[in-house]
Amino acid sequence: MENLKSKHVVWHHGAVNKADREAVTGHKSCTLWMTGLPASGKSTVAVALEKALWDRGIHAYILDGDNVRHGLNKDLGFSPEDRNENIRRIGEVAKLFTEAGVMNITAFISPYRADRDQARQIMKPAEFLEVYVSCSPEECERRDPKGHYKKARSGEIKEFTGISAPYEPPLKPEIVVHTDKQSEAECVTVILSYLEKNGYVPAAE
Amino acid sequence: MENLKSKHVVWHHGAVNKADREAVTGHKSCTLWMTGLPASGKSTVAVALEKALWDRGIHAYILDGDNVRHGLNKDLGFSPEDRNENIRRIGEVAKLFTEAGVMNITAFISPYRADRDQARQIMKPAEFLEVYVSCSPEECERRDPKGHYKKARSGEIKEFTGISAPYEPPLKPEIVVHTDKQSEAECVTVILSYLEKNGYVPAAE
Repeated sequence: MENLKSKHVVWHHGAVNKADREAVTGHKSCTLWMTGLPASGKSTVAVALEKALWDRGIHAYILDGDNVRHGLNKDLGFSPEDRNENIRRIGEVAKLFTEAGVMNITAFISPYRADRDQARQIMKPAEFLEVYVSCSPEECERRDPKGHYKKARSGEIKEFTGISAPYEPPLKPEIVVHTDKQSEAECVTVILSYLEKNGYVPAAE
Repeated sequence: MENLKSKHVVWHHGAVNKADREAVTGHKSCTLWMTGLPASGKSTVAVALEKALWDRGIHAYILDGDNVRHGLNKDLGFSPEDRNENIRRIGEVAKLFTEAGVMNITAFISPYRADRDQARQIMKPAEFLEVYVSCSPEECERRDPKGHYKKARSGEIKEFTGISAPYEPPLKPEIVVHTDKQSEAECVTVILSYLEKNGYVPAAE
């Protein structure tokens, strides 16, 4: 523990870097930032994708409303400022997971381009992949698994994305899946193919 | 994508659970919550430990001031409320990493028992290990790698833990290392031994 000062400086630049982590895990890491209308199928695709990644031995993890809104962001409401802070924190946590070597998947509506771009900007270019989970508004409303569209129509829920609040689709997403045209398995294949072709994960055997 | 509702319910309870992750990674995950005086050697031990874990193929990650205070918690200052919120968020993020299957190490002074206990309480009992990085106040002040003790003595830094603000040592930490009596390597061995004996990681070959 002598000469802690000089050690400190060296060590903070990391005894373990991203390349070291990749050498052990056998894959690169990035944030797969899913965005789409309520009920577009973000969580469904995210869960199937996570399973497919682990089946290949790839360390993956989903950040979603279930584990973020009730924990880290439980102090936040739904005001514009709080929604912005919600996405900001998710971006920061996604960055930590990426740095840690985990293929992380965020599954939030994240309706505003500016918020998504902010998350993109704090990461290195190849570490942020925007995945547009596209689905027609009519089909999303038909599904309505949580009954939120119905409540939005009746006015019980105010400022509901797609009904009474805007959704800004990505202009140049790295990946697009169409849950109203493709099966769940096809959506997963589209994403895995992108990851393979761009060298994030090894090709399936 | 038919019958999204029932799928949704099933899937949110996890297509990939902790046991699945452990089967792939070959180790359990937990939060190693380091606490100790400024300059007690938390970061130094954390970095050496992270390296030792990766050398064994164990997925590990450090949460510390460098990657948290300047990112996720950059909106927080040093008021009592903000310090509390700082530790609260770190606990929540550590919980996410633990759930993701990553052996995560937090390296923050975290001077208050109540704050550390709050972090402990949000996790499952075996998932939170308090690591007391013990070092005499005199030795910490002698090291003073960042010159903070000097500034605290001169009054330039107010409410500095150990000088002008309290540090509450853990009452029942799972692990204790003594950086004023043990070498860096010995400290790492103490922690690794605990993890081996308690089945978190396989014994070294």
